[in-house]
Amino acid sequence: MKKIYVIADFSQENQKTIRAAAANAQLTFLPACELTPANIADVDAVVGPLPKALIPQAKKLEYLQLCSAGADAYLTPGLLPEDILLCNATGAYGHAVSEHLFAGILAVTKKLHLYRDAQHRHAWESLGSVPSIAGMKAIIIGPGDIGGRLARLLRAVGVYIVCVRRTVAEKPDFADEVYTSESLNDILPCADIIAMAVPGSASTYHMISSAQFAVMKRGVILANAGRGNAIDPDALCQAVDSGIIGAAFLDVTEPEPLPKNHPLWDKQSVFITPHISGGYHMPQTRDTLAAIVAENLHRYLTGQTLINIVDRKTGYRSN
Amino acid sequence: MKKIYVIADFSQENQKTIRAAAANAQLTFLPACELTPANIADVDAVVGPLPKALIPQAKKLEYLQLCSAGADAYLTPGLLPEDILLCNATGAYGHAVSEHLFAGILAVTKKLHLYRDAQHRHAWESLGSVPSIAGMKAIIIGPGDIGGRLARLLRAVGVYIVCVRRTVAEKPDFADEVYTSESLNDILPCADIIAMAVPGSASTYHMISSAQFAVMKRGVILANAGRGNAIDPDALCQAVDSGIIGAAFLDVTEPEPLPKNHPLWDKQSVFITPHISGGYHMPQTRDTLAAIVAENLHRYLTGQTLINIVDRKTGYRSN
Repeated sequence: MKKIYVIADFSQENQKTIRAAAANAQLTFLPACELTPANIADVDAVVGPLPKALIPQAKKLEYLQLCSAGADAYLTPGLLPEDILLCNATGAYGHAVSEHLFAGILAVTKKLHLYRDAQHRHAWESLGSVPSIAGMKAIIIGPGDIGGRLARLLRAVGVYIVCVRRTVAEKPDFADEVYTSESLNDILPCADIIAMAVPGSASTYHMISSAQFAVMKRGVILANAGRGNAIDPDALCQAVDSGIIGAAFLDVTEPEPLPKNHPLWDKQSVFITPHISGGYHMPQTRDTLAAIVAENLHRYLTGQTLINIVDRKTGYRSN
Repeated sequence: MKKIYVIADFSQENQKTIRAAAANAQLTFLPACELTPANIADVDAVVGPLPKALIPQAKKLEYLQLCSAGADAYLTPGLLPEDILLCNATGAYGHAVSEHLFAGILAVTKKLHLYRDAQHRHAWESLGSVPSIAGMKAIIIGPGDIGGRLARLLRAVGVYIVCVRRTVAEKPDFADEVYTSESLNDILPCADIIAMAVPGSASTYHMISSAQFAVMKRGVILANAGRGNAIDPDALCQAVDSGIIGAAFLDVTEPEPLPKNHPLWDKQSVFITPHISGGYHMPQTRDTLAAIVAENLHRYLTGQTLINIVDRKTGYRSN
């Protein structure tokens, strides 16, 4: 009988769903702080963020199910043996993160961050013109679960959608145009909005830097979820100061947490939220996550191919 | 030949559109400050906010075309003779105002106003859970040009739409349910979002007051464009302080401008923008307005029934 530890925090209801899918296993819900070298030694599968220090002790581990969309913390070469199945939670956070990004993009488009600042000065004064959302053109970098849902939301209110993907594929139904990353610098100049939702990996690290800012339309709106290090922070500060960036809505930064004295905090056209778009901030997220975990435990225990298997080279799911 | 003064501010391009529609008239564009008792005396039609002091001198005036959606400034009994046609600019501002309200509703739903405040403290910390936009229920009070467009935007991202209208009518295509104002207190408890876009009139004055706040769902999101005095400001402050209002997004207030020392400015859950959702803040608005003015001048000069005629009793357009 497989021994499974679930160290992610689930409601009673969610636990019931997960238990039902793993009826034939020895399933234990416990907080990560109760893991020890002794009790982890004969565990076959772990659901949740297994502390890195315990990986060498998890000698029977076959399968690590993350509850995050990003897997980069476990991709350091040598950290997690290659024969251990690593799965992420793609699909659990798209709803929450896309709505947060969408709200933020609309907010900065309408200068709401600046009006909030003006409110604190009790200032009843216009801050000038704003564009129509309908008719804007957005580039979505990383049209996966998050980016694809964001594209649908933006398109539903009249935004033209250009997607930039890692690999060649058919145009998704939520896109008006689609390109691969190689064309990024060529198409960036057309964008009124650039929204990013890419995982952390060698190929996404600082993918937006000076060369990319240099070709953007002056006053462009930049939004980022996914990973902060997809944007070079020094180049970002320069692009904000020079006015290339009209407004930036960032739920992720480099580094995180953003240090108290970091210059980004005080740039008026930059709107920062502290990597809260995902997590469990939206109650529905936990239910979706529990469903993904249940599905994969069932597949694991019945010998089927798992969903959301992470490609160790790219950091993306491979299926 | 009819003599027409246009005192609203239009671009050269807009002026061309308006001139083309009034080729058979003596049409003059001039700023309101150049109006005098002498030159207004033989004017047949005025486009723009005719200063009230000059109304008695405009002895030949047949038609006043406002460039605002609200006509309440001219509805004071005795101010504007009943035989003068009064038209508003319904249709010009719906696009801009609805997008602004939409962005604001989404922003406060995702606590973005509070995250902006936290940013100023350089605070990298979660502010707790937020609801999913998809699946919320909104009551739109006043589903006219602004409210109807707002309903479409909200519905496009998964919000259930309940409309409250002044008069009985068929369910519009953007609504899931429709009621008349008499049912307001009965349906208010169901709303996660209450969005108001009503004109100023005796029937809308303080239509949301203590009795309405008392039946709202705790933590409801309230949004208002249109007229600030549709909400009783003292009752609003109490509802905010007691937590009935989870967040309020107000582009209009009572009074306006909101006095520097007004308590609303500093209530954290209240997000105020200074009546800027309309006006000419979105460049497209002027073009739409010019088209409405051109259409009505053409109708006026060719003896056809005008559009957007204001019903002096209700303040709404009557056709």
